[in-house]
Amino acid sequence: MEEVASTTMSGDLSGLLFPKSVAVAGASGSPGKIGQVLFDNVVSSFDGPVYAVNPGHTELLGRPCVPSIADLPEAVDLAVLVIPAPTVEEALEACGQRGIHNAIVISAGFKEMGAEGAARERALAAVADRHGINMLGPNCLGLISTQVGLNATFAPRGARPGEIAFISQSGAFCTAVLDWAWKAHVGFSHFISLGNKAVLSEEDFLEAFAVDPRTRVIAAYLEGVEHGERFIRTARSVSRETPIVVIKSGRAEAGARAVSSHTGTLAGSDSAYEAAFRQSGVLRAQNVEELFDFAYLLARQPLPRGRRVGIVTNAGGPGVMATDAVEFEELEVARFTEPTARALAERMPPAANIYNPVDILGDARADRYRDAVRLVMSDANVDMVVALSAPISILTYPELAKILAEESAQHRKPVTCSFMVGELGEEAEDILREAGIPSSFDPARAVRALRGMARYAEICETEWQSPRDLEVNRMAVSELLGKALARDRLRLGVEAMPMLEAYGIPTARGGMVRTPDEAGTLAATLGDEVVLKVVSEHLTHKTDVGGVRMGVRARDVEQTAWDMHRMIRARFPDAALDGILVQEHLPPGREVIVGMVRDPTFGPLIMFGLGGVHVEVMGDVAFAVAPLSQADAEDLVRRVRGYPILRGVRGQGSIDLGALTEVIERISRLAMDFPQLLELEANPVICYPDRVVAVDLRLTVDGEGR
Amino acid sequence: MEEVASTTMSGDLSGLLFPKSVAVAGASGSPGKIGQVLFDNVVSSFDGPVYAVNPGHTELLGRPCVPSIADLPEAVDLAVLVIPAPTVEEALEACGQRGIHNAIVISAGFKEMGAEGAARERALAAVADRHGINMLGPNCLGLISTQVGLNATFAPRGARPGEIAFISQSGAFCTAVLDWAWKAHVGFSHFISLGNKAVLSEEDFLEAFAVDPRTRVIAAYLEGVEHGERFIRTARSVSRETPIVVIKSGRAEAGARAVSSHTGTLAGSDSAYEAAFRQSGVLRAQNVEELFDFAYLLARQPLPRGRRVGIVTNAGGPGVMATDAVEFEELEVARFTEPTARALAERMPPAANIYNPVDILGDARADRYRDAVRLVMSDANVDMVVALSAPISILTYPELAKILAEESAQHRKPVTCSFMVGELGEEAEDILREAGIPSSFDPARAVRALRGMARYAEICETEWQSPRDLEVNRMAVSELLGKALARDRLRLGVEAMPMLEAYGIPTARGGMVRTPDEAGTLAATLGDEVVLKVVSEHLTHKTDVGGVRMGVRARDVEQTAWDMHRMIRARFPDAALDGILVQEHLPPGREVIVGMVRDPTFGPLIMFGLGGVHVEVMGDVAFAVAPLSQADAEDLVRRVRGYPILRGVRGQGSIDLGALTEVIERISRLAMDFPQLLELEANPVICYPDRVVAVDLRLTVDGEGR
Repeated sequence: MEEVASTTMSGDLSGLLFPKSVAVAGASGSPGKIGQVLFDNVVSSFDGPVYAVNPGHTELLGRPCVPSIADLPEAVDLAVLVIPAPTVEEALEACGQRGIHNAIVISAGFKEMGAEGAARERALAAVADRHGINMLGPNCLGLISTQVGLNATFAPRGARPGEIAFISQSGAFCTAVLDWAWKAHVGFSHFISLGNKAVLSEEDFLEAFAVDPRTRVIAAYLEGVEHGERFIRTARSVSRETPIVVIKSGRAEAGARAVSSHTGTLAGSDSAYEAAFRQSGVLRAQNVEELFDFAYLLARQPLPRGRRVGIVTNAGGPGVMATDAVEFEELEVARFTEPTARALAERMPPAANIYNPVDILGDARADRYRDAVRLVMSDANVDMVVALSAPISILTYPELAKILAEESAQHRKPVTCSFMVGELGEEAEDILREAGIPSSFDPARAVRALRGMARYAEICETEWQSPRDLEVNRMAVSELLGKALARDRLRLGVEAMPMLEAYGIPTARGGMVRTPDEAGTLAATLGDEVVLKVVSEHLTHKTDVGGVRMGVRARDVEQTAWDMHRMIRARFPDAALDGILVQEHLPPGREVIVGMVRDPTFGPLIMFGLGGVHVEVMGDVAFAVAPLSQADAEDLVRRVRGYPILRGVRGQGSIDLGALTEVIERISRLAMDFPQLLELEANPVICYPDRVVAVDLRLTVDGEGR
Repeated sequence: MEEVASTTMSGDLSGLLFPKSVAVAGASGSPGKIGQVLFDNVVSSFDGPVYAVNPGHTELLGRPCVPSIADLPEAVDLAVLVIPAPTVEEALEACGQRGIHNAIVISAGFKEMGAEGAARERALAAVADRHGINMLGPNCLGLISTQVGLNATFAPRGARPGEIAFISQSGAFCTAVLDWAWKAHVGFSHFISLGNKAVLSEEDFLEAFAVDPRTRVIAAYLEGVEHGERFIRTARSVSRETPIVVIKSGRAEAGARAVSSHTGTLAGSDSAYEAAFRQSGVLRAQNVEELFDFAYLLARQPLPRGRRVGIVTNAGGPGVMATDAVEFEELEVARFTEPTARALAERMPPAANIYNPVDILGDARADRYRDAVRLVMSDANVDMVVALSAPISILTYPELAKILAEESAQHRKPVTCSFMVGELGEEAEDILREAGIPSSFDPARAVRALRGMARYAEICETEWQSPRDLEVNRMAVSELLGKALARDRLRLGVEAMPMLEAYGIPTARGGMVRTPDEAGTLAATLGDEVVLKVVSEHLTHKTDVGGVRMGVRARDVEQTAWDMHRMIRARFPDAALDGILVQEHLPPGREVIVGMVRDPTFGPLIMFGLGGVHVEVMGDVAFAVAPLSQADAEDLVRRVRGYPILRGVRGQGSIDLGALTEVIERISRLAMDFPQLLELEANPVICYPDRVVAVDLRLTVDGEGR
């Protein structure tokens, strides 16, 4: 039901975000009641017609009050419902009948309250769907739209106008941010409390904000994403035009537990979110400080062309701190061009350090500071600038701020500063704010904000590719899966290798046989030595139980097969034996693992890692959400720490990276084509300089789909 | 010279840190001059006798002014010199003759100004040494001692009294911190600008602060340490009683470049600092924010007994953020005991989450908040508490702060809080400050501060062990080194294996021979197969050039040796061949590398890593400063990511970790005993379940020492 609603609702949100008239059902005159606070906020913030709906009054705060929604004199653009949960459905129905297309349900008592609430919420979504109502909530704080001056929340304080559109899945975080932002002079274009997301969810607002000219950056606090595939698709279409900065909480297992006890969201695993954000150009913030530091700078400053940072300081110590931070944030200390170095040498005193970080010394007055900043900002090798200043008596901070503001307006490069002061810096704050230049006491924080800019600039350069059109034999896999299901086999092993073959993935030559005798016959066609593998759905770790024999000479195959058979019978009398797989014996190569698990939010999540200790001990793996383009697959391979091993170390050549990439793409395609594949792991896949061969496989099929 | 001075000077600093009388040479009446600002600061802050030294006045700011130091009416406890660099030496000499034992040299123009300045600084140190003067500086901002009320700096603002003793190698950072700290209400017991550290350095102040009852924590900004071994020794003796929190800047190569252009310090490599801090109980801060967040909490609150954090919140979102931060900081989300869970279930409303994080809901008033905090703080499974609050109208922040202050006084556990507000929280600030409870808008920051506490609590538990008394044959190594030097051999290879043997390190059996014929004879005593290695100081990468043959059968040894000899002669006609090393052929095992490089600051730095790609590709290595105790060596081995491989994966047993630890200890001992060993690498050392065998070696000897 939600799925349907959210798809049909993702239309025009202008009536919700820029209403011309508003009604508040549950508006109250009793101080302290939510209906009173919210109605007061609406009346005192909004210039258009405002109506109260409350059977007990005919007027409230000087505005007309009608007994029911049906009695409203006009079909308002937006209805806000602050009424008891059991009455919300009926009121929303009344909205629909009155021709109202946008509603905010403030009321709690829905999904967050257990099964009964969840049923109530589903009913609500059905009403919204039937009438085509854009519904925000339920269980939310409301929204603020500074462009029409509307504060439709029950928060004690509204928002300053600004360029940041804010979305939050936590209402408490909304009130916290509002109070903090007022003091910090951070402004918003829109401010949205998502609540339970019964109809409208983050994707709808991403789309709406992308076309809002006032919004320059979207900042979001999310505990989970409703529709994984739609989120990725939407974020991709938005993120290169409008930066999206997100705190996704519930990273840790314990965090996920807290999420489920909070809003009932089944949080996806963090690996899936990390991958999804990477693949859709979402800039992830680690904490609240980063969220707003990134958003502020993205809203106010131009993008850098690279990661090279120029540093200007009036003291060595702060310069070194900034330099350390540049390395820590994986930015680069810029190397100035020759003309810049020469000009600095001419203009600065002999004791100054003219290399980056430029130390203009503690006796620097305004002219020297300006010269240095201008030269560094003009340098072609400098993408971003951080300006530092320890307290000095011969130059005031407002002077410094003015210089930065003017130079920043001249050069289209991001600038942050660290004025390392307390009260001495207060007078400069307005000037910096006007210019959109953030300042912090800690040089490390000034540098960190630049990392967000550099990363976003890279996002803007990304071309999102579609998956390649690969030839596959879908029918063959369908049949194999059908046969397995017919035999009640939900966990398959090496015997399922033909599925990989059907999808164009090279596999070790060989096949399954029923008897030791047949094993001998088949082995004779596979070379001098073969590998024998016992096939049984009851022996998943066949190597550990002696179910695999490597390098068996052709003439010994039959006897070895008999031995294995007897051993397994003796040790595992209850295990059903399907047969023995005879495989060619491959020469040693570099082994990798390609796996897939199905994430509840994002669907197939592809895993890649190097075999052996790399995955098991070092945890050196990377994830990507399917479907994977060729570029995604290449990126996945490059992201593991052990990647240089595949490229070749100690004079060894590279493996066939193109073939490996293609195997990953084909497994992605297999996972997309067959939703009944719950889990899959090709392990090992042996990589050679000229080819890549899958040698073993394990997969799990969903039996429900039969 | 500096070395001598700093050793003899580390005596009683009470006259410097708690002077009863002060003279300022270079005191001035001209506004804006440093000598005027400093003298003004001293006069207006200090109650004891203050004298000016300036031939142009008889009185300054109402205090007696004498023409020269010799004319001072008493031998003051402390002389502050604010005079031109060329005149400082003479003035310090005058101090010595006048019986003054403590001096601060503010003047610049010394080591930081090149060779001439460095010579001037050495002369100054010599004077200080001769007269036994505790000299701070030169080129510093001065010091503040809030206990005697003295501000002997030229900073525009003094310091509030407090429990943090602050040391900084950057004067600019000192002025920055002073201004910031005033606004942030952070207080100091002592505030020291180290300057060039010609005589007194960080170690002297660590010792002095350790015995100062007012100082509860030492916070330092260092760009380098003067005397590595002394620093470790001093920090070890101090750190379990008084926490030492340090920013060591110049982490990155580029950072180190900036350091050397700044104060002339030759920054040691960051690996050495990281190891030295770990081995001496120094808590390293990543940036300025961490430095003061850690220091403040350590100064004001009791230590936790473990890493388990209890979280109380009035909203789910902030609770999840805190939970994420707990995992990010490698702390633990506490699991409450049964009685706590039961009591919470009784006291909290049904919709509350009574598991950690405890969500007491947005309608929580003071009594519920107090109940929850008290129950969580009392739980035996909770070591630390973080209290969160999004804005609520039914409870004010001063009320909340009061509850936290009272509960925190009742329970001896650290508490931090995140009041997620702006102006609404201002009234609570005084109450929290009084109670020593830090608050931040970002829950992540409130949690991060607790990580400092948890780490320091672990430091307090550390028993610093001495190296074991291992039997070694020092004479044998001495002779081998003597022989190598006599033959002008500064780079030795596998032929130096007897040095390892002499130090009790098991090595592969075998020996060096001069002729293929001898090789055959020796090989016959070593088993069926042997390894042949060409020995030549000109072929350092002997494996890469075909100078190593593995698994040579005894009967083929002579011929193979001839082949190798001819091949090397042909390919490297200029390489001097010393002979061939014949070694037993060892079975495969787990290979590790034990190395040593000599750090300019800390001396021998021992490196450990797993062989092959682990060191070369993954950079998976750990460092420790020698001498290593058994515990240090064990810790070193455990710190590499690949440690589980040594313990055994996939049913494989552990290698002989005791034997490996001992090899590391013995190499540490070798490095300590022979300072002329500049670099050394035993690679590979093959590890088996019952023994560990060194197979190859490379080392570099200092030729200067001959």
